[in-house]
Amino acid sequence: MEEKKDILNTGLRGITIASTKISDVDGAAGKLVYRGYLAKDLAGKVSFEEVTYLLLYEELPDEEELKQFAAALAQERDIPKQIRSLMANSPKDALPMDVLQSAVAILAQYDPDIRNNTREAADRMAIRLVAKLATVVAYWDRIRNGKAVIPPNPDLNHAANFLYMLNGQIPDPEMTNYFDVCLVLHAEHSFNASTFAAREVASTRAHMYAAVAAGVGSLSGSLHGGANTRVMQMLLEIGTVDKVEDYVRNILESGRVIMGLGHAVYQTDDPRAHILAPMSKALGERLGEPKWYQMSEVLEQKGKEAFKAKKGRDIYVNVDFYSASLYYYMGIPVDLFTPVFAISRVAGWTAHVLEEQFAGAAPKPALYRPESDYVGEYCGPDECAFIPIDER
Amino acid sequence: MEEKKDILNTGLRGITIASTKISDVDGAAGKLVYRGYLAKDLAGKVSFEEVTYLLLYEELPDEEELKQFAAALAQERDIPKQIRSLMANSPKDALPMDVLQSAVAILAQYDPDIRNNTREAADRMAIRLVAKLATVVAYWDRIRNGKAVIPPNPDLNHAANFLYMLNGQIPDPEMTNYFDVCLVLHAEHSFNASTFAAREVASTRAHMYAAVAAGVGSLSGSLHGGANTRVMQMLLEIGTVDKVEDYVRNILESGRVIMGLGHAVYQTDDPRAHILAPMSKALGERLGEPKWYQMSEVLEQKGKEAFKAKKGRDIYVNVDFYSASLYYYMGIPVDLFTPVFAISRVAGWTAHVLEEQFAGAAPKPALYRPESDYVGEYCGPDECAFIPIDER
Repeated sequence: MEEKKDILNTGLRGITIASTKISDVDGAAGKLVYRGYLAKDLAGKVSFEEVTYLLLYEELPDEEELKQFAAALAQERDIPKQIRSLMANSPKDALPMDVLQSAVAILAQYDPDIRNNTREAADRMAIRLVAKLATVVAYWDRIRNGKAVIPPNPDLNHAANFLYMLNGQIPDPEMTNYFDVCLVLHAEHSFNASTFAAREVASTRAHMYAAVAAGVGSLSGSLHGGANTRVMQMLLEIGTVDKVEDYVRNILESGRVIMGLGHAVYQTDDPRAHILAPMSKALGERLGEPKWYQMSEVLEQKGKEAFKAKKGRDIYVNVDFYSASLYYYMGIPVDLFTPVFAISRVAGWTAHVLEEQFAGAAPKPALYRPESDYVGEYCGPDECAFIPIDER
Repeated sequence: MEEKKDILNTGLRGITIASTKISDVDGAAGKLVYRGYLAKDLAGKVSFEEVTYLLLYEELPDEEELKQFAAALAQERDIPKQIRSLMANSPKDALPMDVLQSAVAILAQYDPDIRNNTREAADRMAIRLVAKLATVVAYWDRIRNGKAVIPPNPDLNHAANFLYMLNGQIPDPEMTNYFDVCLVLHAEHSFNASTFAAREVASTRAHMYAAVAAGVGSLSGSLHGGANTRVMQMLLEIGTVDKVEDYVRNILESGRVIMGLGHAVYQTDDPRAHILAPMSKALGERLGEPKWYQMSEVLEQKGKEAFKAKKGRDIYVNVDFYSASLYYYMGIPVDLFTPVFAISRVAGWTAHVLEEQFAGAAPKPALYRPESDYVGEYCGPDECAFIPIDER
């Protein structure tokens, strides 16, 4: 039984609303667990395919299972030509997350299982969504830049193939590995806003595409998935390492927040940030452009100090803080940072839809239908008497 | 302060999570209030345009305000030709709610205000969404049936224009009025699942299209907006009035539910059902096909009796129970019942997005980010030790 807490207008912050077997976030200890495994233990050791298998099917695959699953994903990477046509007609400055949400909804129209409500059909939909979202994002970037799309390469894993479809070059093993770690670390984070949106939609028994489209919509918000973009915009605005200290002072004096510091759940550094930071450092050095990492490092230190001095309490880095410079080093356009988050998080969204509809921890998952407190008093305590329009 | 209740895995049922000035549902008394006015007092007296104005701007318009608002809506009915092209290419058996969700997301790409985060821009987006959703639904029905689309007629109000775009005939005043009443009664219902999904997405500061697309996705579920479709499918399956009693017995004996009976919130008859029922009766008689209404009437009576006899408690009709036969009489295809729900409810969704982002009753609306209870114990009480793939 939940302890008595004030729920009203708090965004359900700190309120435990549902059981899940998918992941655990221990905010106090800074632990993130996927199906029993610490995410930090998986990063660098398993591929995105492997962690997706874990999230969807509750255990790590053996070699044969992984081979089959990876092949199934690779086979589903293509997207209907109608989505490419739509993109070709879309305004070149359309927001990538809007294009992605459109594509998810359109994909439903082409899914042969869309009227099939079984777990088996939902499993196939999950594979299709995880496979195809990466293609949508890469294709849109090519198309909006007037470039020919690069069809998926079945010889590449999910991480390498995405960068290949985006840039036209097969990334080297180090770059592939770094990006794979990013995908693994962003794949799942319990009832974050986008996953909650997906579960909420799935609770009505809507199909997986409808739910994932809601997840994409939620992730697009500047307070959620948009945060990594805003971290990079901040770094670009600051420009050089020597300007970081002034920037921190100005931000805090004006009462604004430093992007990438602070998290809804963690009361310590985000465990993912400490894995991303060394990769950003290594890539910056390798590319001969260390300043974006260096700025982040100084910004973390100065930001934490200044926050503590001003507020008397600590603030911590979140996952977006170091993913920003890392994605930038990988040549990913800044406005694709959030879509890149989505192509990873879709693993978590689909796992949560499966749990919501087929494997709920409760006897039968209930449709989300909260109550609201009516505070409108337009005509005093009773209802307003209707007044015809010519008497208003 | 909320009374202590068990929240876990209950879909937040009965839990008051946020303040709102938009509407009040008093489930015990069977009251539905829009901005202070009883919905039943508005039905038949105000147009859908008028109630949309009320929901968005907190008060009923005077004649000049209504004239301007209706003109603004009428002017925004057209949809980008790219959406028509997409529909022309869509599989003819695509689910109409999937087409609608796609269209909402695509509309974002063409909205000139999409990067504008002001209340004024959001107001314009709301008008565009309310105006255009009806066009999308009507156009899709024409296109999937190989018929030419019928452009909106600016001389008709929202209700008449939708039926005109759908059927190619201007409906008579009685039919227009009946449909207008349906639109008014479906426009808003506090924190139902689709509105909650829209608010959840809006709480991340995502734009209104992303939020409304989530609402459409949530409404598409068979436990939510899909219910009116299932009521009509049930009536069609039963076929004649004399078979109703057997049907009720069979359903209850097999432990299934009668569609359209029961509601998450009302503990009495849904106040909207009693307004829809006489319209269904009148239209059935006028069309010389009274049986769909008659079946509903007998089904309500026998269903309630049988439920009481079996369960020892009462069950009540909900809004979907009589809207089904009514829409059927209006010539609306059964699989458009839920999209027709959406073209009305979009008024409520957009009002809630405005409240979530600009006029929250709380000091600052918080992003929805609940906690979950991790119940996975894959490796005992501690985390699983990572096992390399060749040792699994």
